[in-house]
Parts: sequence; structure tokens; C-alpha cells
Amino acid sequence: MALSHCISRNACKLYGDKLKSYIYVTALKLNTSSKGDSHDNNQDRFKYQRTTRPKRGVVTLACGSAGIFLALSALHLHRKNTCRHITSREITYVPNTFGFGKVLAASESPNEPGQIIEGLPTYSRADVAAHNTVETKIWVTFCNGVYDITQYLQSHPGGNKILLAAGKSIEPYWNVYSAHKNEEIYDVLETLRIGNITEPDPKKERNRDDPYRLDPVRSPLLIPCCEKPFNAEPPAEILTDMFYTPNHAFFVRNHLPVPCVKTEKYALQLELPGQKTCLKYEELRKMPKKSVTATTMCAGNRRNEMIKVKPVKGLNWKAAAISNAKWSGPSLDDVLKKFKVDIDKVNSNYIVFEGMDKQPDGSPYGASIPIEIARSLKDVIIIAYEMNGAIIPRDHGYPVRVMIPGVVGARQVKWLNRIYFSSEESTSHWQRNDYKGFSPSVDWDNVNFDKSVSITELPVTSAICEPVEGTDLEKDSETVTVKGYAYSGGGRGIIRVDVSADGGKTWTEANLKPNGQTPYTSYAWTLWEVDLSLPQDADETTLVAKAVDISYNVQPDSVEGIWNLRGVLNNAWHKVNVTRGKQNKTSQQDENSKEQQEMTVEQKEKTDQQEAKK
Amino acid sequence: MALSHCISRNACKLYGDKLKSYIYVTALKLNTSSKGDSHDNNQDRFKYQRTTRPKRGVVTLACGSAGIFLALSALHLHRKNTCRHITSREITYVPNTFGFGKVLAASESPNEPGQIIEGLPTYSRADVAAHNTVETKIWVTFCNGVYDITQYLQSHPGGNKILLAAGKSIEPYWNVYSAHKNEEIYDVLETLRIGNITEPDPKKERNRDDPYRLDPVRSPLLIPCCEKPFNAEPPAEILTDMFYTPNHAFFVRNHLPVPCVKTEKYALQLELPGQKTCLKYEELRKMPKKSVTATTMCAGNRRNEMIKVKPVKGLNWKAAAISNAKWSGPSLDDVLKKFKVDIDKVNSNYIVFEGMDKQPDGSPYGASIPIEIARSLKDVIIIAYEMNGAIIPRDHGYPVRVMIPGVVGARQVKWLNRIYFSSEESTSHWQRNDYKGFSPSVDWDNVNFDKSVSITELPVTSAICEPVEGTDLEKDSETVTVKGYAYSGGGRGIIRVDVSADGGKTWTEANLKPNGQTPYTSYAWTLWEVDLSLPQDADETTLVAKAVDISYNVQPDSVEGIWNLRGVLNNAWHKVNVTRGKQNKTSQQDENSKEQQEMTVEQKEKTDQQEAKK
Repeated sequence: MALSHCISRNACKLYGDKLKSYIYVTALKLNTSSKGDSHDNNQDRFKYQRTTRPKRGVVTLACGSAGIFLALSALHLHRKNTCRHITSREITYVPNTFGFGKVLAASESPNEPGQIIEGLPTYSRADVAAHNTVETKIWVTFCNGVYDITQYLQSHPGGNKILLAAGKSIEPYWNVYSAHKNEEIYDVLETLRIGNITEPDPKKERNRDDPYRLDPVRSPLLIPCCEKPFNAEPPAEILTDMFYTPNHAFFVRNHLPVPCVKTEKYALQLELPGQKTCLKYEELRKMPKKSVTATTMCAGNRRNEMIKVKPVKGLNWKAAAISNAKWSGPSLDDVLKKFKVDIDKVNSNYIVFEGMDKQPDGSPYGASIPIEIARSLKDVIIIAYEMNGAIIPRDHGYPVRVMIPGVVGARQVKWLNRIYFSSEESTSHWQRNDYKGFSPSVDWDNVNFDKSVSITELPVTSAICEPVEGTDLEKDSETVTVKGYAYSGGGRGIIRVDVSADGGKTWTEANLKPNGQTPYTSYAWTLWEVDLSLPQDADETTLVAKAVDISYNVQPDSVEGIWNLRGVLNNAWHKVNVTRGKQNKTSQQDENSKEQQEMTVEQKEKTDQQEAKK
Repeated sequence: MALSHCISRNACKLYGDKLKSYIYVTALKLNTSSKGDSHDNNQDRFKYQRTTRPKRGVVTLACGSAGIFLALSALHLHRKNTCRHITSREITYVPNTFGFGKVLAASESPNEPGQIIEGLPTYSRADVAAHNTVETKIWVTFCNGVYDITQYLQSHPGGNKILLAAGKSIEPYWNVYSAHKNEEIYDVLETLRIGNITEPDPKKERNRDDPYRLDPVRSPLLIPCCEKPFNAEPPAEILTDMFYTPNHAFFVRNHLPVPCVKTEKYALQLELPGQKTCLKYEELRKMPKKSVTATTMCAGNRRNEMIKVKPVKGLNWKAAAISNAKWSGPSLDDVLKKFKVDIDKVNSNYIVFEGMDKQPDGSPYGASIPIEIARSLKDVIIIAYEMNGAIIPRDHGYPVRVMIPGVVGARQVKWLNRIYFSSEESTSHWQRNDYKGFSPSVDWDNVNFDKSVSITELPVTSAICEPVEGTDLEKDSETVTVKGYAYSGGGRGIIRVDVSADGGKTWTEANLKPNGQTPYTSYAWTLWEVDLSLPQDADETTLVAKAVDISYNVQPDSVEGIWNLRGVLNNAWHKVNVTRGKQNKTSQQDENSKEQQEMTVEQKEKTDQQEAKK
């Protein structure tokens, strides 16, 4: 059956020949029951886009309420540890009354990607891990397949990013770049097949006395800077590819073991003026659902640069302790109004949030924000149970997290247990003795945490995510494409990002990707990209980025001037050193070596012919 | 009559012996009619504190509504170009029913300060102006008196600040430092008397064709960077002495000639959704009076530092194009509500303000702010007719100015004529083609004003006001007292100012003077002061200041990184170079020279004795 048979007349008219490529990259609507032929809407599309490893079922074409869109995509069938895509040839089309169709996954093609192929050698995970450079050859795994991608590096449309998976499984990355999950790419992958791997994923031993034993399993894509409590960031170079960071790639900042919470037992404790009450999980879900798109950043993001100036105490975050998501649930204002509380009239200085994550002495994680911030944000502070359209993952606060847009991550309390008003800040360690800024001359001998102001809103910042530090560009490259993010606290939108390819001598304005927000309520980051001319005759240079927000706040030039003993608030100009032709061969050299190879072939033929003549 | 006779029993009990010094520095309540024996309140006290050169009349003691305070001070009688103070001996006390008294200025003392003294030499203004360094001797004038203050420099409690008046009249400075206006200081002054000056103040010629011919007379204290239109800043070193900048010392930023407006003809034009209306001056004054204390800063403040990096177009402001005042009048919200307009429901993107100052083509000065800013500030945007408790001076917008706290001065439209709502920004030159920031690499060949965002809120900044650039400290000074201001836009309060005495290697936190505002609605500047240890063995160093606001925004290190072709938004670390003992003698040297002088006297006596013996 031709693909166009699955599509309504309107859709065909709209998309014509572009249809085939389009549907591969659109979202997956999966119904595990055969009833699922209903219309989809944007919200649901969003939700299912992030569903991975669905069960066998049906794929529907759907019409979004905001206009026609298509929701046919590849379907994984996973059974006995194999994954495969259905192909267009396998689709069974069942028209319905709306002019759209329901398609059923039917027969299976004989060569599923990643399945064990009899007769190929079998490798261990250690074997694969040992092949992670061009010198050793670069191997990756996909399901039960082992692949040598060394020759494919140059042709990879995504460039060097493929090297993130060197010696490892490519699956975590393909969950992020889900456009890979299509028949054509599986076909390419199988051409690089060299063997099988049958060894199961190593299971971590769990010690009964380990308070972290019940922590969730994380994506191998995340790079931990601490295992217990778990703190990890995604590779910077994948951050700027997506406005919404996929949940499994979202940076994790835990202070304590992840609580195990059952929604049927969950109730949000509310200590409101004159009343103590609570809201059960199901009650929260029944309230009007509102959403906010907000960027979460750890105050310690980019601490690794501060450490280089002078030692500091804190996790050694690089530049990816930041992510962006859409959070949904009732608004704080709606929750308070349900109990007849008007936050504009509450006579308190702070609103305090407590988590269910507890210290060994039983005291919980806690944070507070000034009441004036809570008032100005009351409509956009979300008591969230959804993250990017899915149930919030355990690492990000399941079942309920308070999302206060425009403030530092530390105040966006996860595993939210209790809300109350107070004349003073949260008494938690993290409010009183952490997450505060200091003058560069304050050291551990003279520090006074009481004197310093708690971090609430964050200052304007930006970072280069691509290329990464130490990238060696082609020797004859004249330009470099630089990508990154920029963000400012308090809803202050980004109005300009200047990027330099010569260490800050000259600047070019980056192209800012629209984030759909308004200048003074811009709680999401701004992604940007720019092509820069490289300085001539220099085989190394420093790329620099600095952002400007709507209030014309700018980043400071140096880390030295903002250094502080806790290593927080590093928003200095972000710098990335790159070289040109220091490791790689030039394209010209490639051409020459190809010519040499061809000559060798010719010579060989000559030799062969000569030999044959003998 | 003893002074204490003028004071109520309560006041005596409260102030006791401190009374005499206290009353000299408190405010003047002057009633030109003999009816004036009414109570005063804080508001009025404030108002009259700034009245200069009152007419002959009565001085009352008054009781503020918020507690007892005293308002007896020196009274100028100015007649035939002479000024004098009444002394306590001249007071006639008339008790009233409240236990306070009315006092009448009576007899005149024989030696009024600044009066012509027969027999002294007469000097011209040019003579005085030529005496403005230690080498030439330092002369100043007061009324008709000429004084040589060279010997007094070391004893002046205010230090080198006295040199601001070198070769000029001290009166503009004593209007700022009004504590000088007391009998004791006049007595000291007269001991330095060397002559008379009878030449009247030079009157500027006024050309009938000059559009600026009707501009007001300004205080000679202001340092102009442009005469027409008039733009001037006060000496930086007087800025940080007062939280409220006196009106006559407030920096002036005019774009066009100052309009001549009669209040009886004034009406604020209001183009509101569905109605065109107006509010007469008297109607504005009858509305509930609200006040906001707000700092006004020109976006071009500190342009002189940017010019040093690379030429820019704009006035060569130093660091004092900033001032702070209390503005009073009805709030914007009250004005709109009077006409049943709820700004939260107005369906427009901008609110536009137009002045009465006009370009040669008749088009007025104009500015706009985004509606979301107007909404969030609706209660604190003041349609002001008072500045620091007095009628707004002509240079600052008489009769009505819109004071939008937390935004750049250019949007705080003076001589306010019209308010309207619009889907787009003000079309004025100053909104569209001025007051915008640019990347350092934008030049006049590639600039695109349409692409850049208009400045509304200003970024965090600070500056050192004392010591001034080039100050030569005593050779044996071990410390230096540094004073300055810090400010951030959008109501973001200042939480820290770091100051360095070694060019930014080490930092000390300055003491911030409370400004009575809350962290997120801090529209006034923060003044600060710090004593720093000077680096040992260095005879020159750079003082540096940088501030942090409540959102932890910081100042950039260098001017280079924020340079822009219009020279606006310079909030780089502020630097002041000082030397130690390069010009001045050391205190030790002073001691030595004193000893030498004493020896000389002894020697002279010896010589005299020897001569007498002969």
C-alpha cells in the first residue's frame, strides 16, 4: 500500500511530495488498545512524542486541533530485546469517518535492525568499549548489533556528535535524536554491522544499607558529576538541538536520595493563613491544568571554570546544568484560591516549599522565595505533575514539583510535600547556608552566610555548546558554526548574543531562535546559532559568547571578578578553545590519500596484469 | 534672649544641650505674612528646606506630625545684593498656644558676612578666577566678599571638596551643603576676608533668534557638557553626600529648548480607549498625592570612558549624569481610573508620553514603555508636579513630568503634554533612532536601529564619586575612604558593592547606606562608603567599584566588551586612578615645615634680640 493512501485528501494537498520525509520525523501516536482511532491534539502529540519503547499496537494518523498535522512515524516493536521499525510496506490502512485512517502494524520484515545475525562474531561490552577512537576504530551497539562506524564519521550529517556514542550504545542518543529511528537509517546502520553482542546490560549491585538503593535507573547519556546523590548533565553538544530538553536528557540535580512516592498516598500539605489542609494527587489533577515553559538551571552551572581560578566547594558542573521543559498542573494561584486564600493579601514575607527528600536526621529539603516574587508570578507558578507532557520522572520530582519560572533550580522544589507562609526564609541548609553569592575576597575563614542574600533570580548568562572545548576543526575551514543557549532570570528575555571567533576582539550577533515568549515573561532559554569566519593564519583560537537581556544586563568578562567560595553564579563570558588541523587530516590530504589509494589500486591492477602475464 | 527660650518644654527635654547645634542644621520655615505660626509637618519641612534666598519675614519653631522637630535656622535677608544671617541674639520670641513660638527677625548685627567692608581692595571676577590653585592662592567669593582660603584648606572638615569653588562663588555649594549657613562658619569665613567684589553677575546676552533664549538660569555648580540644549552634571564628589539630590544640583538632560508653560493654561492631554480628554493642572493637584523616590540616569552616563576606547556619538558625560529625588503627584493608575480606564485591560502594546519641548519642525519629544512595564508599575508611575517637595524646576519638567521609576531617564518625559496608548512604540527619534544598545562590532556603516531593542530598564551599575580621578593622596596615607553610588533598573535593589584599592586584585565589601526601599521595588540608588587599605610601596593605584543587584546581575569588567557606537549603557567596573604623595607634601613634611617656621620665628626673635642688643 502506498503511503499516500494513509493520508487524508487535505493532508495530501498540503504536503504533496514532501509527505514521505515529513512523516518520518513527526510524532508517534500509539494506542495499546484497538479502540484508538480518535483524533489527537497538540497536547497529546507532544506527550507521545516522548514515549519510548512503546508496546506493539496501532499507529494512527491524526488531525491536530490547531490545524492538520501528521502523526505517523516509525513504530518500535520490542520483543525479546529486539527493536524494529515497521515500514510503509507493512502498513494496513483502515479508513474512518473523519477521512483519516488507522493503520495497523502487520507483517515483520526479515532483517530487523539490531537483531542477532547468525555467523557474525560475538563481542563483549568491554570489547566494544575499547573501540572508541579513530585509531582503535569506533564501534557502537544497537540492540544486539555491533557496528564499526569509523568510515561513516565523515558522512554523518550530524558531524562529530556521533562520537558521543563511541564504544557504547547509540540508543540513548537516538532517543534524543529520534529522527534516526527510521527505516533508511536502520538500513545504513546495518551496512556497518560487524558482529553481535549478547551480554545483558550490567546491573548495579544494590546494597540494602545504601540510602540511594531505590534511586531510578538513568539514561546512560547523562554524565554524572556525582553518583550519590545523583547529579548529572547531558553532553553540552546535544542541549542546543532541542528547545524542550527530553526528560531523560534533562540535567539532574539531587541533594538527597530520590523519594519513592505512590500517587494514591500522595497529598500536598498546605498550611495556609488560618487553616491546615491538603490536596490529594487526584484532586490536583482534576483542577484546571495550566502550563509554563521554563528553564531550570543550577546556580553551580559552569563551576568547572571557577575551580580553575581558585578551588571552590561544589559539584564540578560544566555548562550543561541547565535544561528547558514545559511543566503542567494547577497554578499556585488556583490552588490558593481553592481555599479562599488571596496571595496578594497574605501577610507574610516568604512562601516556603518543602520536599519529601529527607536528610539522615529526617529534616526535609526546603526552599523559599520572597512573597513579592510569588505574587508577581502567581499565575505561572505551577504545581506540576507533568513535564513535557509526560508524568514527571522520579529524578525530576515525581509525582509533584513546584515550578517557579525565572528562579534558580534550587527553589523549584521537587517531590513537593508542603507549602506554607512565613515571616522568614526557609530554615533549610540550602536556603540559609548554600546558594548564596559572595565577594571574591570572602574565604572560608571570614564567610558569613547570614550576611549574604539567597539566590532567587539568576543573572543573564550564555554558553557555547558546539563546538565543544578542544574541538579540532578541518585545517582548511574558513568558518565555524557555533551554537549555544542564553538565559536570564526573572523572565527577562534575551535580546542579543555576541559571539567572537578571535577571543573577544571582534563580535558577530548570533541568530536567536524565537522561543515564543514575551520580553518580560521569557522564562525559557533562547537558543542561538551563528556562522563565524575563523581568523586567518591561526591554528588555534578562542570562541567567546556573551548575552544581553531585555534590561541590557550583560555578562561579566572574567571569572576572576565573580569568583566566590561556593562557585555559584558563574555567568562570565563563555569561552571554548578550538584548533584547526592539529589532529585531523585536511580535506586536501583526504583527496590526496584517496588519489594515492586509487593509484595503488591501478598499480595493483598493473601488478596483477603483470603477474598474470607471467 | 537665650535660644532655649524659643523652644517648647518638650523640645528642651528631648534635645537638651544638643539643641544649639541641631537647630542650625535643621530646616527653615519662612512665612512672608505675620499669620504664619501654624504647625509644620515633615512634608513642609522638606519643602522649605530647599527654599533659598527667602524674603525678610518670620521664622517659626514647628512641631512635625511624626514627632517633634525643630525648624529654626539661619535666615538670609537679602537686600541690595547682601546676604546675612540672623543670630540668636536678634530673635524676638512670640509664644503661641501650642507651646511653640514664633520668632521675628529683628535688629541687624553690624558685621554681616559678605557685606562690603570699606577700606578693603576691590577685585573683579576675573581677578578671583585667576586665583584657583595653591600656587596662585585660592580665592572664593561670598556675596560682596572676597576670601583667600588657601591657609584654610587643611582645616576644612569637608576636605578637598572646598576646591570645587576655587576662583568662584562658594554660594552654589553652600546651597547644597546648607549646614555651612550658620553664624559660626560665617565668622570663620570673615577671618579670611581680603577684599570686596562689586561687579554684578555677568548677564548672558540673549539673542532674539536663539531658541534657547528663554531657558532658565542654572546653578553655577552644574558642569555643562552642552550649553544648547543644556546638559550638565553636578561635580561627582558632591553626589554621594546626599540621598536626595537637591533640585538645583540635579543633573540636567535636555534635548530641546525648555518650554515656557503657564500652569493656568496647562492641561494634560489624555487619549484613552474610546475617549479624548484632559486634566488641568489644578485638577491634577486636587487628586490624591502619591510619592515615589526614584533615581534618574541618562543612558549615556559615563560615556567619557567609552569614548576613550573608540569614538562614539553623544554628549561627553562623566559619572554624574544620575541623580535621585522624591517625585509627587497623582499616580498613573489614579489618573486612568478617574476616566474608568483599567490599564490591565487596555488592549495596546505601549503607553506613549509626549513632551511640550518641540523640534524646529514642531514635532515633540516622545517616549514609550511596554504596556507590561506600565502595568507592573501603575501604582508608582507618578504624574509629578513636585520634585523633592518643591514645584518641579523648569529644567526638570515644570509643571508636570511623568516619573516612571526603574527606567532610563529618556522615558521619564518632562513637560508632559500627552499620554496615549498605541500598538507600536513612540515614533519619536529618541525612541526609534536613539537610546538603543548595539554589539561592539556594529558601526555607522552597518547599524540598523530597527533591529535593536529600545532601552527601558537599565542594567546594574555603580561609580566611585570620591576620591575623583587623579586625586593625589597624602604620601603617608595608609587608607583611603571611597564613596559612590550603585543602581540597577527595574526596581532591583543593590545587595553588594565590591571595591578594590589595587586595580581589582582584591576586593572589600562597601557599607551600603539603607535607602528605605524593598529589594524588588528599589527605585532609588544605594549610596555606599568604604575605607580601604592602600597597597604598600606603590605611589599610584587604581580604585575599582562593581555592584551586584538582587538578581545577582553584575557589572562587566571592561568597557571594550560593551562599547557601542552611541556610547550608551556603560556599566563597566568603574575605575579611578589615584596617586600618593606625587603633588602634596606629606604630613611629616608639613610637620617639618611647621617646625622650620617655628624655628624661623625663634631665629627671628634671636635675631631681633641680637639686633636690639646692638
